[in-house]
Amino acid sequence: MYDLLIKSAIHYQTGKQVDIAIKDGKISKISSEIQDPARESINASGQIVLPSFANMHSHLPMSLFKGLGADLPLMEWLKNIIWPLEKELASPQFVKDGALLGIAEAIKSGTTLIMDMYFFEEELVSIAHDVNIRLAPGFGIVDFPTAVAKTPKEYIHRAKEFIKNLKNLPLINPCICPHSVYSCSKETLLSALEVALSENIPIHIHCAENKQEIELSLEKNGKRPAEYLHSLGLLTKKTFLAHCVYLEKHERELIALSGSHVVHCPESNLKLSSGIAPISQYIKENISVLIGTDGPASNDDIDMLGEIRTMTLLQKLQSPTAITASLALSIAHAGFRALSINAGTLEENAEADLILIKTDLKPIDPQAQIVYSANRSDITTVLCKGKPLLYKGQLTTIDEEELKIRATSWREKVLRLV
Amino acid sequence: MYDLLIKSAIHYQTGKQVDIAIKDGKISKISSEIQDPARESINASGQIVLPSFANMHSHLPMSLFKGLGADLPLMEWLKNIIWPLEKELASPQFVKDGALLGIAEAIKSGTTLIMDMYFFEEELVSIAHDVNIRLAPGFGIVDFPTAVAKTPKEYIHRAKEFIKNLKNLPLINPCICPHSVYSCSKETLLSALEVALSENIPIHIHCAENKQEIELSLEKNGKRPAEYLHSLGLLTKKTFLAHCVYLEKHERELIALSGSHVVHCPESNLKLSSGIAPISQYIKENISVLIGTDGPASNDDIDMLGEIRTMTLLQKLQSPTAITASLALSIAHAGFRALSINAGTLEENAEADLILIKTDLKPIDPQAQIVYSANRSDITTVLCKGKPLLYKGQLTTIDEEELKIRATSWREKVLRLV
Repeated sequence: MYDLLIKSAIHYQTGKQVDIAIKDGKISKISSEIQDPARESINASGQIVLPSFANMHSHLPMSLFKGLGADLPLMEWLKNIIWPLEKELASPQFVKDGALLGIAEAIKSGTTLIMDMYFFEEELVSIAHDVNIRLAPGFGIVDFPTAVAKTPKEYIHRAKEFIKNLKNLPLINPCICPHSVYSCSKETLLSALEVALSENIPIHIHCAENKQEIELSLEKNGKRPAEYLHSLGLLTKKTFLAHCVYLEKHERELIALSGSHVVHCPESNLKLSSGIAPISQYIKENISVLIGTDGPASNDDIDMLGEIRTMTLLQKLQSPTAITASLALSIAHAGFRALSINAGTLEENAEADLILIKTDLKPIDPQAQIVYSANRSDITTVLCKGKPLLYKGQLTTIDEEELKIRATSWREKVLRLV
Repeated sequence: MYDLLIKSAIHYQTGKQVDIAIKDGKISKISSEIQDPARESINASGQIVLPSFANMHSHLPMSLFKGLGADLPLMEWLKNIIWPLEKELASPQFVKDGALLGIAEAIKSGTTLIMDMYFFEEELVSIAHDVNIRLAPGFGIVDFPTAVAKTPKEYIHRAKEFIKNLKNLPLINPCICPHSVYSCSKETLLSALEVALSENIPIHIHCAENKQEIELSLEKNGKRPAEYLHSLGLLTKKTFLAHCVYLEKHERELIALSGSHVVHCPESNLKLSSGIAPISQYIKENISVLIGTDGPASNDDIDMLGEIRTMTLLQKLQSPTAITASLALSIAHAGFRALSINAGTLEENAEADLILIKTDLKPIDPQAQIVYSANRSDITTVLCKGKPLLYKGQLTTIDEEELKIRATSWREKVLRLV
């Protein structure tokens, strides 16, 4: 007896009609027709089925800051708007409520894995458990004092506790997140690396986001950010480099050789005037490229379908075939594999992290339909490990009304401070 | 007695709560509170009110071609995919059904004026009348034979009839559309101009869409496309130049002086690898810049909210303040004024072409919320001349089920041919 049977969906790659049977959170069988019984079934006629998306760089709690400092450059936006507000507001409860707001939006755009970086990330873990979504929470480390810690040493100490507490939880992959080469000293970066290696966990860090960062790094360290990280040993197979808008040829070689991952954030990079990362080039040079939305205050949404579309259209500035719809989707699915999660693929025995997208007309090319024409409101169903997070367009594991009340109270606090 | 009262909306510019009273298709009164009676009222609490959008370049009937030749360059896409299919399929009924499909999508993203260009555009007029949407249908002219006409002379003859029949209809602004400088001879362009001047109607033409077009024009005419159009007198106050990705300084001066309008189509320009039109520069140089989605087969959607967002993010590559959210919205509203329609503004006595966008939280900056965070599925209400086209997220003047049946039958024909 299967747990769930998806009937008569359109396979996103072949365009053919398929049934998909799910058992114990995994894809048990894919076939043109499955007759065996199942406890529940979904009629997916006219809907495309595909693996859900992995959003590999976000700062979920910043959902409460959406719309702040809308037309400013990165450093100004951080120093004059975001950091002062965070000093005032960032608390465990703020993080919890903001993250849940972000997760609700992420699910609606087809996401079942989020790699996040912020303060008080332990608060996100209980939420993720309740919501049944995969999370790679990152313990954020900077050299300056925040509500989390006063000194780099204290940050590292707390990061170790964080990791110890979360390491063996289902759906959770804790990470260590030295913020960037411009906000962490060499000693801080090395201490973070030591924790990552001894605990065998990922490093998630901002890298080469804009030209100013490159200049600062050259000035301070005599090396460009990726070069510098390499020189300290931070380019590992489990390193996730967010942004990488500016990489020289030799840096790209170092990254490709190391097996580190580049997390492309195209909309944030446009919005903050950072630039366009030439990821189709990176892919040709065998770099593992993933995608993320970045925080919802520099985007300003957590819409993976929109992010995939923007990524694809931007690369076409080079050539119309720079990224095809098929490659675009594989980038949005690759985050699972990068964290050794067997999802992001429509194969038997893979985790049943799936989404259904409704179509008005039979698609000519389902992958083109998803990338170029679909809107996130066309996503009707999101399954994580076989369990619905969204069904018939409604969130099933989040009480949206209650969430709205809590978020509204934070929004009022923000509005009083700006 | 008002016809309609919108209660407790958030004004998109001031962020303040407003009531809006509508009578005889116009905004009759805007005030913080209106107590006078109205035949109907909408509770817009928590919703932002703003003028609807003008989509100034589309090929609506191509909705039936969505997803075709997804990852090809412009000329290849036209010559190998689109033109052969059009030869096979384009007929009055194809145009009618495809256009209605496109109009349905356009309304859902907040549009009440569409400037279109295709064959058999007279078919669109009865639809627009039934749906109650504003349309600037364009009679397409090319030098080669199509189902519409065999010779340039016959095209021009038919264009004159087209215009005569439509000139005084409400909501309709007929245009003449010589396709481009590469598909129309000098004689054809001059004949089209003569019709435009004698009938006092707009010229709508593709111009400087990609580098290949520039080269072709230099080769054939010894001038770049905009220069060439100027030399023939086609840059008039009523000329709408779609695309204009590549304009030299002296061409920009000619366009600014002439009062011709540039219709920016950012997503199509990315998708077909054409480039990014530097419209923030054009605006500084006093060019009238409008926005359009282009046809749904080179985008591949008719989502004005998405188009506005893409336009804004792309210009930020120059500087984060290149286009603010406020300027972006004014570009999306400017198409009305360009056709001498008193809409696109929240002012008393303006036409009541309005939309309501729901928000989960009170927006920090309503215009930033609309441009950077809102999704077209957040649009609940669209009014054209005071009458609802969309209400509570549902189309009120289109039978979607019936439309789907007709569109499905065309889609099957397309799928058999590709």
